[in-house]
This record gives sequence, C-alpha cells and structure tokens, in this order.
Amino acid sequence: MSNCIFCKIVKGEIPAAKVYEGKKFIAFLDISPANKGHALIIPKKHYEKLEEMPDEDGKEFGELQVKIAKAVMKATNAEGFNLLLNNGKAAGQEVMHAHMHIQPRFSSDDFHYKWTHKEYEEGEMQKFQQKIKQFL
Amino acid sequence: MSNCIFCKIVKGEIPAAKVYEGKKFIAFLDISPANKGHALIIPKKHYEKLEEMPDEDGKEFGELQVKIAKAVMKATNAEGFNLLLNNGKAAGQEVMHAHMHIQPRFSSDDFHYKWTHKEYEEGEMQKFQQKIKQFL
Repeated sequence: MSNCIFCKIVKGEIPAAKVYEGKKFIAFLDISPANKGHALIIPKKHYEKLEEMPDEDGKEFGELQVKIAKAVMKATNAEGFNLLLNNGKAAGQEVMHAHMHIQPRFSSDDFHYKWTHKEYEEGEMQKFQQKIKQFL
Repeated sequence: MSNCIFCKIVKGEIPAAKVYEGKKFIAFLDISPANKGHALIIPKKHYEKLEEMPDEDGKEFGELQVKIAKAVMKATNAEGFNLLLNNGKAAGQEVMHAHMHIQPRFSSDDFHYKWTHKEYEEGEMQKFQQKIKQFL
C-alpha cells in the first residue's frame, strides 16, 4: 500500500535497520524500542491483519520468531523476551500492517503485560471449545 | 517434566479444553482467560523457553498461530486479538513451559499492553543491528 510506512521499508523507500530478509518476511529494529534490540517481523506483502495471511505463510513467520528471538537474546544479553502481536485497533495495533514485536526484557523493566481475568460459567468453556474447533 | 502442568495436559493426565492437536504442538483454552475463547499453543515437548526449541519447529508453531487466531476470531466475534508469549520470568512468564497466548480482544476491554520507549544514541541502532545479524 502506497501510504504504508512498513511497505515503504519493504521496498527500501525509507531506511530501516534490517536484520533479516527472507522470501516473504523481513525483520528490522523498532525505532522506538521497548528496550534496545527490539525487533519487528513483518510480511513483505501488505496484510493489515494476520487473518488475511495464508496459513501456509505462518511457517516462515514462526520459524523466524524462534530464530530471531535467539539472536536478539544473544546480542542483547537480555534475561527474557516478549513476542507480541497487536491485531486490530481493539488489541492496540497502531501501524496497520501486521507485525510481530520481539522485545528483549530485563527484570529491572518498568513495564508489564498484565490482563484482567474473566470466568467461564458452568459448561461455557466447552461451548467455546466446540465453536473454535468448528473453524479449524 | 513430571511436575509441569502443561506436560500433564499434553499427556492427558489432567483435563483441558483442547481445540487442536498436531504433530508437535497442542492448543487448548486458558482456564483463566483474558476474554472467553483465549487459547494457548504449546509444544508437546517440554521446552521451558523458546530458545530451546529447534528453529525448524517454529514452522508448525507459526502456521498454528495464524490458523487458530482465525478460528478464535470467528468463534468469538472479537474485534481483534493479541498474540503474546512471555519468555522468562523477566518477561512475565508464569508457567515454565513455553506457550503462546491467543487473546480475543474487544474495544470495551479493561487492559492494554503498553511499554515505555527507550532511545538509541547516535550510531547505536546500527551496532545492535550488526550484533543481531552476527547471530543469524
């Protein structure tokens, strides 16, 4: 998409600190990192959301997550990392081109990913289980 | 591992609302969900952290993320979702068997994943880029 900043990075129209370029994905450093070494993995093709991506493309995507997370850990001497993908505005997505964050973490960090917990009614969990299985 | 709750789910020793079982991974519903339909993808083999997983296994892992996220979205009519993997205690990992959260999200949600932003010094980003590339 012509006005998408990540598409421009893919095409080399704006600079980025690329760490990897594969067949369908590239990885580069986030310019406003959670911690230094914070990387992003994005599909070269413009998919606003992950649902638009063919399941098959998930293979390169997942392999890269493992590979690049290992490299980020070695390069930053981090104590841990988060993989985080915000899909859709309700989930906090800001750049509307699907992207997975790899964020090196330290126990001295000043942020935490916490969520509130909901409760299933009796039998409700099984209903959700069946519904999800229907679509798989 | 004998005392790992996720290993017990893999072996069927304790019940779980499984939605998928593949060659190397299973997916099931989180019993204390961020929202109803919140699923987890875990490797069948006990890897405490993602770094222990062979890169190759990332293929099934990534394909499942795309596939199951689509199914969760359809089953829950969510507006978005987060993929979140907390790797290591510094990153908020609580169950020490690697797991990816798929959390359906709604704009009415009462939680947000925000991080503080760090700044690179002049030339520092390129140093991190080179270091990460060394390990890839």
